[in-house]
Amino acid sequence: MKIRFLLFFFALSFYSYSQNNVLVFQSDFGIKDGAVSAMKGVAMGVSTDIKIFDLTHEIPSYNIWEAAYRLSQTAQYYPAGTVFVSVCDPGVGTSRHSVVLLTKSGHYFVTPDNGTLTLIAEQLGIQEIREIDEVKNRRANSNESYTFHGRDVYAYTGARLASKTITFEEIGAKLPNEVVKIEYQKPLYNNGVVKGGIPILDIQYGNIWTNIDKKTFSNLNLKVGDFVSVQIFNGTKKVYHKKVQLVNTFGQVAVGTEVCYFNSLLNFALAVNQGNFSEKNKIYSGASWSITISK
Amino acid sequence: MKIRFLLFFFALSFYSYSQNNVLVFQSDFGIKDGAVSAMKGVAMGVSTDIKIFDLTHEIPSYNIWEAAYRLSQTAQYYPAGTVFVSVCDPGVGTSRHSVVLLTKSGHYFVTPDNGTLTLIAEQLGIQEIREIDEVKNRRANSNESYTFHGRDVYAYTGARLASKTITFEEIGAKLPNEVVKIEYQKPLYNNGVVKGGIPILDIQYGNIWTNIDKKTFSNLNLKVGDFVSVQIFNGTKKVYHKKVQLVNTFGQVAVGTEVCYFNSLLNFALAVNQGNFSEKNKIYSGASWSITISK
Amino acid sequence: MKIRFLLFFFALSFYSYSQNNVLVFQSDFGIKDGAVSAMKGVAMGVSTDIKIFDLTHEIPSYNIWEAAYRLSQTAQYYPAGTVFVSVCDPGVGTSRHSVVLLTKSGHYFVTPDNGTLTLIAEQLGIQEIREIDEVKNRRANSNESYTFHGRDVYAYTGARLASKTITFEEIGAKLPNEVVKIEYQKPLYNNGVVKGGIPILDIQYGNIWTNIDKKTFSNLNLKVGDFVSVQIFNGTKKVYHKKVQLVNTFGQVAVGTEVCYFNSLLNFALAVNQGNFSEKNKIYSGASWSITISK
Repeated sequence: MKIRFLLFFFALSFYSYSQNNVLVFQSDFGIKDGAVSAMKGVAMGVSTDIKIFDLTHEIPSYNIWEAAYRLSQTAQYYPAGTVFVSVCDPGVGTSRHSVVLLTKSGHYFVTPDNGTLTLIAEQLGIQEIREIDEVKNRRANSNESYTFHGRDVYAYTGARLASKTITFEEIGAKLPNEVVKIEYQKPLYNNGVVKGGIPILDIQYGNIWTNIDKKTFSNLNLKVGDFVSVQIFNGTKKVYHKKVQLVNTFGQVAVGTEVCYFNSLLNFALAVNQGNFSEKNKIYSGASWSITISK
Repeated sequence: MKIRFLLFFFALSFYSYSQNNVLVFQSDFGIKDGAVSAMKGVAMGVSTDIKIFDLTHEIPSYNIWEAAYRLSQTAQYYPAGTVFVSVCDPGVGTSRHSVVLLTKSGHYFVTPDNGTLTLIAEQLGIQEIREIDEVKNRRANSNESYTFHGRDVYAYTGARLASKTITFEEIGAKLPNEVVKIEYQKPLYNNGVVKGGIPILDIQYGNIWTNIDKKTFSNLNLKVGDFVSVQIFNGTKKVYHKKVQLVNTFGQVAVGTEVCYFNSLLNFALAVNQGNFSEKNKIYSGASWSITISK
Repeated sequence: MKIRFLLFFFALSFYSYSQNNVLVFQSDFGIKDGAVSAMKGVAMGVSTDIKIFDLTHEIPSYNIWEAAYRLSQTAQYYPAGTVFVSVCDPGVGTSRHSVVLLTKSGHYFVTPDNGTLTLIAEQLGIQEIREIDEVKNRRANSNESYTFHGRDVYAYTGARLASKTITFEEIGAKLPNEVVKIEYQKPLYNNGVVKGGIPILDIQYGNIWTNIDKKTFSNLNLKVGDFVSVQIFNGTKKVYHKKVQLVNTFGQVAVGTEVCYFNSLLNFALAVNQGNFSEKNKIYSGASWSITISK
């Protein structure tokens, strides 16, 4: 009986942490030149068995916060064992560490440790972090190039890890279970008011996505169909103050109506049915924006 | 002899209707955030053997007509057995049906039945339609999310179908062989004049693509090298009236010359050699635009 | 001993020139419509074992120079045996040859011979060129379409080559080892001054990429940390004249500082740390732009 249990846990941990040949790239390179494709070429040179996907390459240049946000929005939907390579690296060539994070969920993240891991480390949990040994884990004959770590170190290492050419241990030395973090406003409830931040827009539609989760929101005892009092601030300046109806689906209201809802990440969000809430109200995302909601 | 024939037809129908592990995504999500990638992650969680492609994710938000058009422009070039997932879904959460259409050509289309199937149903023929049973065909633990059917139902079901995890029959109950249709102007010939619509622009080049096919055009008895009298209307307002030469290839005329030709779908089209016909003449596409051509 | 050597060379040449199932597409089609996806569908119809990647589809319309440049920037990072299909074809339907170039490095390039091969032929060397026999190497039932060679000839032939459905010899007749070339300013050193061109911008960041390689630059005896005198001309008009510091990494200087460095191709380049050099100084790329650098 004991042995069965041990075997079960061995199988479970093997399933959870073993790479699965799936490699996902994210960067701020855009897709107009050959930079993203060169990374994939390097990966194909490692093994043609790897299945390669893109998260996005439209991270605004040097915007580490957004790189962190996109990982936290997406990585959880890939199976355990997937290797993510994220290259948003304004400090390339400086002393930031190049690392691989293995999360408790069994996902791998190859990236400069510059804040990119802020949210994913909280969300999926830190199992182990290793620093990339760039002497061993670097594309052959790439030492002369100082500026394309994405291709020569991160893509190369991600591909070798995804294809099981190297083990996680062969990445390099173990680091403490800590990542570089970007400070941000977390959601909180106090005295009948919920406060939070606006980490990102749903840019394709112009919806406002807050970081207020369903549980924090539940302190207000509001239900679908109720109107919610919403105030939005840019710094100390109040930009928006309206009562907005909480809906399950936009189809329930007329075209052009402002609504609030829980988005696909189950966070509080604001939209105009078939319109653009952000453009209409000149409300954007980032550290200077905050929101309060109450009955 | 009889048995051979039966075997032949069995093999043929198996070839025509059996899924081939190829999965193609279309949406109005854009590629700046993680939404498209999350759908692919869900598919990889179903099976890492699936080969995933994009049709386009730049369908203008909520533009069901364009989603329908892009499917009809592209699906026929994929082999029978390919599964398409199209998510342009302004009515998400309302009572529109979530369906899978199997065409007579052996292609599968997973989509809300909101008009998206208008053109592909005419073009490839309806073999069978099934309604997605969302109790069985839904990503585990996704019931709380009301707004991301694309990821939790359509991508998940498309991936299970493409990978043969489920059969077509396991999608859900059979529906009548009808799809929701968007009304549009079909091409017609009358009394020396051919009339038609402008369903779409070839946006990359600014060419005007009409829905006038070669056969309808042939009533005019015009041949390559001839000049064609072209009138274009926005509603009742005449925007363009010129004689334009019919060519096989743009290389035959000087840079900047307006020409008409048959495009890659073998429909009548207008272009400026190495220029942008749409921008130059302020002519766009959609239901309000029409065109007449004559000798 | 002799036999071993022969086997070794046989294996080597087999490795170098044999296709590897990897197929990379480049075009000026953009990704808003179904044209790129249709090419991939045709490839899947040839074989679902092909691994398909994009170089870029954002080549500006009809800009053959940029198509040539993107190939030279990227192809070398893919393993030998990779097949590239490049479709930037303003002369479609005219008498330009449709060819496949096999380079000395073992990469294949399927393209109209219209200048697209200018740089890659110099960079990777011409092993052999064959003209595509369009009678044999053409998608079934595609003869009526005059304008979509990309899908019906190039994608189809590239897919058949990548999947080893046909051999290189079956492409068509051998041509002389010459490609159509676009004239451009090569880098040169004379009397204390290095001269060169600006073939391309690193558009995502607005950096200026010259074609001045490290070896030509070395005639100036400048080292990292030194200031370099840079003059940039549009035709005969001097647009820029400053002393700029040579750095290894942008992280060494303050945000907003102009620097010069060697880019990922090891060519001389100019940038603003976390800014846009091109926009700031109104300097762009192309045949009319030149640069001189000295102590």
